[in-house]
Amino acid sequence: MLINGLPGESISAADRGLMYGDGVFRTMRLLDRRIVHWSHHYQKLQQDCAALLLPCPDVHLLEAEIEQLAWEQPDGVVRLTLTRGVGKRGYAPSDAPMPTRIFSFSPAPIYPPEWVEQGVRLHLCQLRLAAQPRLAGIKHLNRLENVLAAVEWNDPAIAEGLLLDGAGHVIGGVRSNVFCWHNDVLLTPELSRCGVAGVQRQRIIEWALQSGQSLEVRDMTLDEVLTADEVLVCNSVFGLWPVRELVGKHWCEFPLARRLAAQLELAA
Amino acid sequence: MLINGLPGESISAADRGLMYGDGVFRTMRLLDRRIVHWSHHYQKLQQDCAALLLPCPDVHLLEAEIEQLAWEQPDGVVRLTLTRGVGKRGYAPSDAPMPTRIFSFSPAPIYPPEWVEQGVRLHLCQLRLAAQPRLAGIKHLNRLENVLAAVEWNDPAIAEGLLLDGAGHVIGGVRSNVFCWHNDVLLTPELSRCGVAGVQRQRIIEWALQSGQSLEVRDMTLDEVLTADEVLVCNSVFGLWPVRELVGKHWCEFPLARRLAAQLELAA
Repeated sequence: MLINGLPGESISAADRGLMYGDGVFRTMRLLDRRIVHWSHHYQKLQQDCAALLLPCPDVHLLEAEIEQLAWEQPDGVVRLTLTRGVGKRGYAPSDAPMPTRIFSFSPAPIYPPEWVEQGVRLHLCQLRLAAQPRLAGIKHLNRLENVLAAVEWNDPAIAEGLLLDGAGHVIGGVRSNVFCWHNDVLLTPELSRCGVAGVQRQRIIEWALQSGQSLEVRDMTLDEVLTADEVLVCNSVFGLWPVRELVGKHWCEFPLARRLAAQLELAA
Repeated sequence: MLINGLPGESISAADRGLMYGDGVFRTMRLLDRRIVHWSHHYQKLQQDCAALLLPCPDVHLLEAEIEQLAWEQPDGVVRLTLTRGVGKRGYAPSDAPMPTRIFSFSPAPIYPPEWVEQGVRLHLCQLRLAAQPRLAGIKHLNRLENVLAAVEWNDPAIAEGLLLDGAGHVIGGVRSNVFCWHNDVLLTPELSRCGVAGVQRQRIIEWALQSGQSLEVRDMTLDEVLTADEVLVCNSVFGLWPVRELVGKHWCEFPLARRLAAQLELAA
C-alpha cells in the first residue's frame, strides 16, 4: 500500500473517509505495470471529486505512485481511495481539506473460466437502491447498500446480484453495470437517481456512439431484462460476463458479449 | 483515542469502515467521567449493530474502555465508532468479522449561550434525503448526505440545518432530531424511510408516553413545522435548542423546551 505516496498500512482514525464515508474510490486492473483504461479512470475520478467538492490529485502525481506500486507487483487489482482527509469533528468539511490518497494492491481474482464462456448466474437482490440524485453515479465510499445486497446470497456459483431501485427500475449489478440487447438496440439503465456509472459502462456507451450502434440509456424494467435477447454485466476487474440465468430465465448465446469483448478489450 | 482497547491514533487502511462505510457510531457527552445516558446509547448501538448484522461488543468491555478514556479527560465528547473490521476485497462481509472499535475524545464544543436562552436559527437544506428503509434510523458511517447538507451554509449564526426527504416530509436536523408543539400535541417525524433516530429523541418519546403527554410520531410537512407553536432540535452533544427562526418564521417563547430541558436533563 501507498498512503499519500509513502509505504504504509494505516490511516488516521480521525480521517473523514472513516468517520463519514467522505471520499471516493476506483477499482482498477493492473496489467504489465499499467492501469488498464487509466485515462477513463482518471476522468471519472475527476468527475466524482467535483461532485463531492473534493480536490482531485494531479494526474502526474497519481501516475508516479502507480509506477511505484507496480514495481513489485506488475499484475493485479489496484484500488485508489481518496478521502477528504482528517478534519475537525462535525459534518461540515474544512475550507482547505488535505485529502488522503490510498493505493492498495490485491492479486487478480481467479474466476471460473466458464463464466466468460458460458455466462454467469445472477441473483435478483431484494434490497432496493434509494434514489439520491446528488450521489447517483458517483463511486463514493458510502456503500452500505452494496454490502447489504452482497449479504443476500452465498452460493459461489452465483457471480453477481442485480439491483433494482424503489420504483422497480433495473439499476445494475452489486459491483457492475448491466447492458441488454433488445431487438438490435443496446440498452443500459439511466443512472441519475442511483447506481454507479462505471468506466466499462462508459466505454461501451462510447463504442456504441462511435460505431453507429443503436443505444438507449433510459429507465429499464426487470421485464425488459428478462425478455432481452442477451444480457451482460461489466466492470473493470472481471471485464465482461454474459448472463446465462436470472430468476428462471436462461440465455445460451452471446454474440453481443463476444463482439464487445473483442472490440473493447473487456475480458479480464 | 483507544483502538480495540489500546492507545492509538490509526487504523488499517483495509478496514471496511473506510472502504465501504461499513459500521456504526455514537456521539456521546462525557460528564464527570461518565457517559450521559449511557444505557440508551448502548441499547441504540445494539439495535444498529443488529440491523447491519454486526456483532455488538459486550457492555462491560465498552464500559471499561470508557473508564480508561475518561481517566485523563473527564469532560467532553466521546465518539465510539464500530466497524466490520478488516476484510477481504469485495462487498460481501466475512462470516466471522473481527470488528474494530474506536473511542475518540474531543473537548466539549462551546456554543453561544443565547442559543439555549433565545433559540437558534435553522437553515432549510436543499438536499433531500433518500428513502432507504433498510438503513433508516441507523447511525451508520454512510453520512455523505449529511456532509453535503452541511456544506450548504457557513454563517456561524445558523446553528443547524433542517432536512426534508424527496417527498417533502420533514425528517430532522443535519445532526439532530426535531420536535414540534402543535395544539398541545408533541409531534416528531416518523423515521422508517430515512433519518437517524437519536437517543435524545428516544428519551423525549419515552417521557411523553410515561407522562401522558399527547404524542404523534408520523410524517410531517414543512408547513406543519412553520405553523407549530414551538419547534426544537435535540442531540446528545448540545442537548436541546429551541428554534427561533426558520425561512422567515419566528418564534420567541419556548415553554416546551424549558419543560423538557428541566425534566430530561437535556441541556448540555
